[in-house]
Amino acid sequence: MTKKPLFDKIAVIGLGLIGSSLCWRVKRDGLAKRIAGHARTAATRAKAMELGFVDSAHDTPAEAARDADLVVLCAPIGANAAIAEEIGPVLKRGAIVSDVGSVKVCVIRDVGPHLPDGVHLVPGHPVAGTEHSGPESGFPELFENRYCILTPPPGADAGAVERVAELWRRAGSNVELMDPHHHDRVLAVTSHLPHLISYTIVGTASDLETQLRREKQDVSDVVETREVIKYSAGGFRDFTRIAASDPVMWRDIFLNNREAVLELLGRFVEDITALQRAIRWGEGETLEAFFTRTRAIRRGVIEMGQAGSFNPAEPEKE
Amino acid sequence: MTKKPLFDKIAVIGLGLIGSSLCWRVKRDGLAKRIAGHARTAATRAKAMELGFVDSAHDTPAEAARDADLVVLCAPIGANAAIAEEIGPVLKRGAIVSDVGSVKVCVIRDVGPHLPDGVHLVPGHPVAGTEHSGPESGFPELFENRYCILTPPPGADAGAVERVAELWRRAGSNVELMDPHHHDRVLAVTSHLPHLISYTIVGTASDLETQLRREKQDVSDVVETREVIKYSAGGFRDFTRIAASDPVMWRDIFLNNREAVLELLGRFVEDITALQRAIRWGEGETLEAFFTRTRAIRRGVIEMGQAGSFNPAEPEKE
Repeated sequence: MTKKPLFDKIAVIGLGLIGSSLCWRVKRDGLAKRIAGHARTAATRAKAMELGFVDSAHDTPAEAARDADLVVLCAPIGANAAIAEEIGPVLKRGAIVSDVGSVKVCVIRDVGPHLPDGVHLVPGHPVAGTEHSGPESGFPELFENRYCILTPPPGADAGAVERVAELWRRAGSNVELMDPHHHDRVLAVTSHLPHLISYTIVGTASDLETQLRREKQDVSDVVETREVIKYSAGGFRDFTRIAASDPVMWRDIFLNNREAVLELLGRFVEDITALQRAIRWGEGETLEAFFTRTRAIRRGVIEMGQAGSFNPAEPEKE
Repeated sequence: MTKKPLFDKIAVIGLGLIGSSLCWRVKRDGLAKRIAGHARTAATRAKAMELGFVDSAHDTPAEAARDADLVVLCAPIGANAAIAEEIGPVLKRGAIVSDVGSVKVCVIRDVGPHLPDGVHLVPGHPVAGTEHSGPESGFPELFENRYCILTPPPGADAGAVERVAELWRRAGSNVELMDPHHHDRVLAVTSHLPHLISYTIVGTASDLETQLRREKQDVSDVVETREVIKYSAGGFRDFTRIAASDPVMWRDIFLNNREAVLELLGRFVEDITALQRAIRWGEGETLEAFFTRTRAIRRGVIEMGQAGSFNPAEPEKE
């Protein structure tokens, strides 16, 4: 790489899957001269130094953020307000604060008020991940060929937005700009509701054995968790992968995108109730027509994949 | 292969993904001396002959089944009763009738009464598939390392069961025996409910744009289907793949496993309603505890995969 570093000092607050992957990429491609990290636990800080994806690991967010040209918040989004309050006073003039959270309106609400004049807020969301979490799970290619959505608030500094965009482009991502409110609605459909449903069905399945054993006499009625796992290839397996994501991260996503998720969930429950009724009444035509319609969307996914924007055939990292 | 053929003549009724894959495997490994096929449409029959996975293609199930040692029903399960009624009179003494349907109690109910004395019914369910359907989509490796569940009714002929089991073992599958009622309950969890949910969420998403455009003024509220597809990597993509499966096959599955699916769906809707309430009331601890619990099941899937029974890291065929 003959390109110059984009930043003198980057501070990464939160060193889980996304934070550590960003560090690895910045390090590998020389995107910053220096990476300062902060993690809440001493164990994670030690691991980060041992693996070597940060140049320094600090006990507090403020120590990491001091003198940084770019601070990237990578903790669960529920922690953002407290972190912003703590780093606000030490940020240097002209610094940029960004983040990687899956909900964006709340970042502007929670972080914005704590930043001094002359510090630029450029919220971001790399649409990337695996089912794994923690500092050991990161790798520099995580963002390759993924979208990264930036949601600058009205009046954001164009130069700051461009510098953050360039960071993600150099990390391998396709950068898009989006209105924060709109982002939260789109992601509620493409990611938040699918995760909630996956968590639910895996929970429903695991409760089944316990509850049936308590109630029933007929052993052929009892579905064992062991069996569910054994035959999981028929659809259930995809749900277990999605439902293995980080619990705290997802708790914060649902609490902070409440309105969009609840609206969508209301629609989903209505729709599944209609199908439930069609099954109960034996309405074959209703079912067939519904199932036929949903095929078209899959074709759309495949076509967009073939058009090169991403590859839907690519398996998730296990 | 120096092994002898298992059957002189196999008849395969229904030449879609499963039927054609079975034919390809039987042909490749010489599991029968002759394969007679039947498909409802002339186009499928012509395609089967053109591709060469059957030795003969017949206009009616009875013509294909005449003199067969094994008849495998591979049409959507709703068609089984009529097919059995038609082939019953021509079946030779000692013939075996099997099938590949995803629901098993209904096969015994619909097919059993039409079989003459001396003909053996051995229902089967290869737990395998892709999102594709039709005679062009088959391939001989489809059943490799998959489970095939046989659900012989009480008093079934042990020799007949073993011959069907050996066919599937030679097709690459791990064969298991199961009570038919129990099978239908287990598969409701591992496959039928996941499919119903996937169909629903894809439908909910595709209705969103239409309905929001009709109602709302605020353009940032309108989530376009194009956008949903674009950002589908974050969870939604898995659902679109599942929801692209054959509509008629799935219609018949839901109509024929009504009781188990409705019971489970009732539990699922209760569970998601409880999470909905936790989100509305901001109950972070409830959410986190629930999400933490579901992780354990994923670990179970991975451990069983590593134990060699199947490979959960294997991507679905696109």
